[in-house]
Amino acid sequence: MPASPIRKLVPYSEAAKSKGRTVYHLNIGQPDIETPEVVLEKIRRNNLKVIEYSHSAGFESYRKKLVKYYKSKGISVEPNEIIVTTGGSEALMFGLFACLNPGDEIITPEPFYANYLGFACAAGVVIKPVTSYIENGFALPPVEEFEKVITSRTKAILICNPNNPTGYLYSEEELEQLRLLVLKHDIFLFSDEVYREFCYDGLSAYSAMALKGTENNVIMVDSISKRYSCCGARIGTFITKNKKVLDAVLKFAQARLSPPTFGQIAGEAAIDTPPEYFEKVIAEYTERRDFVVSAINKMEGAFCTKPQGAFYVIARLPIDNSDTFCRWLLEEFEYNNQTVMLAPATGFYATKGLGIDEVRIGYVLNINALKNSMQCLEEALKIYPGRKVKEESIVNSQ
Amino acid sequence: MPASPIRKLVPYSEAAKSKGRTVYHLNIGQPDIETPEVVLEKIRRNNLKVIEYSHSAGFESYRKKLVKYYKSKGISVEPNEIIVTTGGSEALMFGLFACLNPGDEIITPEPFYANYLGFACAAGVVIKPVTSYIENGFALPPVEEFEKVITSRTKAILICNPNNPTGYLYSEEELEQLRLLVLKHDIFLFSDEVYREFCYDGLSAYSAMALKGTENNVIMVDSISKRYSCCGARIGTFITKNKKVLDAVLKFAQARLSPPTFGQIAGEAAIDTPPEYFEKVIAEYTERRDFVVSAINKMEGAFCTKPQGAFYVIARLPIDNSDTFCRWLLEEFEYNNQTVMLAPATGFYATKGLGIDEVRIGYVLNINALKNSMQCLEEALKIYPGRKVKEESIVNSQ
Repeated sequence: MPASPIRKLVPYSEAAKSKGRTVYHLNIGQPDIETPEVVLEKIRRNNLKVIEYSHSAGFESYRKKLVKYYKSKGISVEPNEIIVTTGGSEALMFGLFACLNPGDEIITPEPFYANYLGFACAAGVVIKPVTSYIENGFALPPVEEFEKVITSRTKAILICNPNNPTGYLYSEEELEQLRLLVLKHDIFLFSDEVYREFCYDGLSAYSAMALKGTENNVIMVDSISKRYSCCGARIGTFITKNKKVLDAVLKFAQARLSPPTFGQIAGEAAIDTPPEYFEKVIAEYTERRDFVVSAINKMEGAFCTKPQGAFYVIARLPIDNSDTFCRWLLEEFEYNNQTVMLAPATGFYATKGLGIDEVRIGYVLNINALKNSMQCLEEALKIYPGRKVKEESIVNSQ
Repeated sequence: MPASPIRKLVPYSEAAKSKGRTVYHLNIGQPDIETPEVVLEKIRRNNLKVIEYSHSAGFESYRKKLVKYYKSKGISVEPNEIIVTTGGSEALMFGLFACLNPGDEIITPEPFYANYLGFACAAGVVIKPVTSYIENGFALPPVEEFEKVITSRTKAILICNPNNPTGYLYSEEELEQLRLLVLKHDIFLFSDEVYREFCYDGLSAYSAMALKGTENNVIMVDSISKRYSCCGARIGTFITKNKKVLDAVLKFAQARLSPPTFGQIAGEAAIDTPPEYFEKVIAEYTERRDFVVSAINKMEGAFCTKPQGAFYVIARLPIDNSDTFCRWLLEEFEYNNQTVMLAPATGFYATKGLGIDEVRIGYVLNINALKNSMQCLEEALKIYPGRKVKEESIVNSQ
């Protein structure tokens, strides 16, 4: 098993069999939630005769419908401020290409979504991390920490809200701090909002698009992958009110011709997903989160806070090394002929040594699978050869 | 209307109405040919419940089936030497990212597919053109011309075979020359073979994958877009036997998660397209090509050779400036309430001034539309204010 979390993006929504054991895949962001029927139905009933290129910015009908969707979320945007992309991944890539030159720097709180490193690498851009900490649930680091790493090459700040991998939901006040910061330094604020719908405890996500006076600064990256359990559709959106950036991104979009046709059909249909779908999904994830968070905190030496967004939680475990532990779980461990696959948090930190006693757990399986998974984890921690006592395990946390 | 051919990649497979006139779109590579029924049927009959991520390299079942397809074309390749991509565009991008560093150079015969410039720009790579000429149908320039532009930064040669925009089909002898060249300098040979199926006069395309002793040098880029009239599916393939390059490309593939699910379903189904489909398509394109080539050469002062591949032809016209002419056709001209949209060839040359009296014509519409289009062109050339007599118009050709 390779160590980097990037390598684990393989297709499993259910527990898979390996060496005769059941393996619960809590290491990836592929939910087991069903795609809304309105989406599947639309694909099955399509009557295309030629699978043509679409407009490079995406179907106009889809962009117009997206305007209504965003309006319902308090985000005011015009169809020509939206470029439909091949997943959120491409939206972020295009943004980096358009807004930063090779050698430029982008600041992001760590732990962060590991693939940001891949996109930065492709764009020749340097990621400068500002560390957030498990003790306060990975809240936004103080603005002074951002100020410390700003240089003349800093062109942008990148946040993911609600956050992958931490599940942290940034508050309006935190976003306000970022607003002042990007305006002060006249840099971009990239806001990855693909988990917007996944907020719990009656909360909702505050979009960076709503920040006053930042029309030329804010770049929003979005995706239908998680929202409608449409990861394979590969449809995202790049959104900004900055005309120059839109023009530049459109050129990159034109070079790759068009986003996927069937994915766009799926995305357009998905906007008609009935509200009850999300009510059910939110209730389901809330139950899963509550269960996982409670289970972890009952394990000796383990700790996590209760995140309010996305469907991940980062847990600190009494272990020597999360890479070794996660590999051991897969290769050596079993309990009742079952084991669990987790993502070592080291892959989410740019600062070497951080995350060494942390793992990311995606609560992407049903509650029974989660019960078995947490039982496996608990038993595993009892016998893991690299188990550390509490005093040792917090050494690397600050 | 913007001047760059990149900007014209808008969705039209049929003549469209503009200002009340019928506009024949021969400027783009979106064929009017129907997608094979076996593909459309498979999409309509899918029974997915969750539109999941696939493996980053694409469905294994699809890659195994591709192996059979390539074998039928005399190309020997293993499933793990294939990475399914989001269109041929992404395959080429990944190849540039994996094989070249920013500042490195790639040599390609001009005129070339204009989007190569966009990909090179994204990868920070410099395209060095070697000019091919209309007089010999845009045959491969002599090897000495390649040698002249090779520097220590040259990392690759890029060809498109059969060629877009020229329709030229490279011979086995020409590929053999390239084989010796890339081996001599130990550089990569990128071969864009997306038009493989579109060869006429009983000929077939000779793949760079068949060149002996170049296992570590050859990168093949492929796509289902044109082959099965599936442009909107956004499915291509990146193929090489070079393990290091495969490893590097897989990392970029993992960063963008997966290629589109429905596109892969379409691609996998497409391999079962019955041979009669292609027989009909080849017969159709042969008729179109013969008609267009004959029509052009009957126009006073116009000239083109008869290309043997793809579905494009570059014509030299008695005009002062192809950008101005193409814009004039759209904005000023009409004949029987019709006009024609062509791609100015200037967009396909990197050398400034070349292509100024050339246009690319895609014979992507049915024969009746082509008859009307050629009549429009003939009438337009009679009254175009920037018409040039033959002596003047050939000044820029060498």
